[in-house]
Amino acid sequence: MPIQAISWSPTGAVRILDQRALPEAPLQRDLESVAAMADAIRTLQVRGAPLIGIAAAMGLVAGTREQRGGTREAFLAALAAAGATLVATRPTAANLRWAVGRMQQVAQATPGDAGTVWDRLHAEATAIWGEDRAMCRRIGEAGLPLLPAGANVLTHCNAGALATGGIGTALAPVYLAHEAGRRVHVFVCETRPLLQGARLTAWELTHDGVPATLIADGAAGALFRAARVDLVLVGADCIARNGDFANKIGTYALAVLARHHGVPFYCAAPASTIDATIADGEEIGIEERDGGELKSLGGRAVAPADIAAYNPAFDVTPARYVTGFVTDRGILHPPFGAEP
Amino acid sequence: MPIQAISWSPTGAVRILDQRALPEAPLQRDLESVAAMADAIRTLQVRGAPLIGIAAAMGLVAGTREQRGGTREAFLAALAAAGATLVATRPTAANLRWAVGRMQQVAQATPGDAGTVWDRLHAEATAIWGEDRAMCRRIGEAGLPLLPAGANVLTHCNAGALATGGIGTALAPVYLAHEAGRRVHVFVCETRPLLQGARLTAWELTHDGVPATLIADGAAGALFRAARVDLVLVGADCIARNGDFANKIGTYALAVLARHHGVPFYCAAPASTIDATIADGEEIGIEERDGGELKSLGGRAVAPADIAAYNPAFDVTPARYVTGFVTDRGILHPPFGAEP
Repeated sequence: MPIQAISWSPTGAVRILDQRALPEAPLQRDLESVAAMADAIRTLQVRGAPLIGIAAAMGLVAGTREQRGGTREAFLAALAAAGATLVATRPTAANLRWAVGRMQQVAQATPGDAGTVWDRLHAEATAIWGEDRAMCRRIGEAGLPLLPAGANVLTHCNAGALATGGIGTALAPVYLAHEAGRRVHVFVCETRPLLQGARLTAWELTHDGVPATLIADGAAGALFRAARVDLVLVGADCIARNGDFANKIGTYALAVLARHHGVPFYCAAPASTIDATIADGEEIGIEERDGGELKSLGGRAVAPADIAAYNPAFDVTPARYVTGFVTDRGILHPPFGAEP
Repeated sequence: MPIQAISWSPTGAVRILDQRALPEAPLQRDLESVAAMADAIRTLQVRGAPLIGIAAAMGLVAGTREQRGGTREAFLAALAAAGATLVATRPTAANLRWAVGRMQQVAQATPGDAGTVWDRLHAEATAIWGEDRAMCRRIGEAGLPLLPAGANVLTHCNAGALATGGIGTALAPVYLAHEAGRRVHVFVCETRPLLQGARLTAWELTHDGVPATLIADGAAGALFRAARVDLVLVGADCIARNGDFANKIGTYALAVLARHHGVPFYCAAPASTIDATIADGEEIGIEERDGGELKSLGGRAVAPADIAAYNPAFDVTPARYVTGFVTDRGILHPPFGAEP
């Protein structure tokens, strides 16, 4: 079974895997309060767009348990304050705002006393989590035919179980193939600078027993040249209407290598990642992160302090490099602009 | 002035820059004995094929100063033992074997007492160093026309002053352009796993005041797509007769990106790096290094201990990707097989 990144604890707290501690120590934490959940999201104990939304919804429930016995008005006021606290942890996270908003709408629309509303919220958070698990599985089922026995998949960053409430997006087809007894193998780019491939993807694949091999990002070229990659499968942070998409820095170079060597290149994501308000990749803003991520490692300087650094978090891969998008509504093929 | 990686100390020892300490602390060491030089080569205080050869030759001289007053026979015996010690430090380093052999042949061929032979060896080691400095400068002069003012160069690993006795190979044209007052700018790939780009190239360029920007290896694609790279300039560890060449892992992906985006791709190396006994890249053996280099950083695990890792030190770039070889005999253009 792939790792489960989030769940309810037996006492009704939110049980998470502290992702800061990976890969050294898989550390479960039971988060009892909104403050504890806000801290967990802010400090990246939980990360990955879908997972953050689920965590916020579940955190709202666990964190308002004490208010169940009060008045409806006091409960709704506490819920509003809790939602504001959670949304403020990562202001640009769309799933976080969406999940908190959905929970608050449900609370408003539910008649009855505080206990009744709370019960409804518990069901709603569980539903949000369940929808995500089902979405992951549908992506997995859509992508499964791409992975015959013996397939060698190359992936980048972490679009796996640790980023979702279920079995991931890009890794979902891999998990289903493994579950079905097909021998598939994954090359994992370590994904500098923050090493999500090494720390998270490598960890969750080995945890589930999926054969995997870690490589430096620069070693991907040698694998393509040696015809050792059958398929590239990556996630997406944002997909434009025309099929251009943003994903972790380094994805575009893999797309060029795949095209150059005639290897299929797929991007797996929920269909909700396609943002119809964004016409193409030129409109996708790219977060540029602090160069310090490149200049020190484990507290030790690895570059001169005064050198400039260019450290974009994402790059944009134009639609023409994409063989298909593996989504919870099936595989979308070009031309992508034709999709509703 | 670019950094000088090696020189004679005022007392006749070999003065090196301890490259293990970079970029945190530029640390000079005066090596007085053959044992100290052997240790410095073994522990990578000095690295880079040309520099290792020079260091060994100079180490033979500094380390036999005490034997100058003895008999010729005792001196030659001490020299032979010293040479064997140095060659054993890095058994596959061709320049090391070549330099030690040249010094021993000169000693045998020089008549006279121990002091006379030692004086000749001092001159020979100084000549080996001087030839390397001149070779670097000729490479720089050959490559200088490739770098108009405003040029943005992308490089990988370290093929600079820290790898040679002079101003480097791939960086030599950059230094000469900078010396001539042309504003050129270098994008430096950090070069995982050992980060020679971040630790060494970034350091030596900023030391000389050359404008440079550090990037993660995976960020190169975004730079090409944004048309921010005018020229790729890398070194070579081995060039086959047909122009296929081996260089640090990650070089091939840069060659594919350059080709895909119509950017010239040059490899700079002494003409002596072309090995006429090697027909093509298929015959170049690639050292595979321990996966531990990918799995921990600064003593902390960054990947699960039980994951497999593929960690080749080099990759091979086929000749068809090479716009030209910038050598001390000028720029060689395709077809490369036609060269004598």
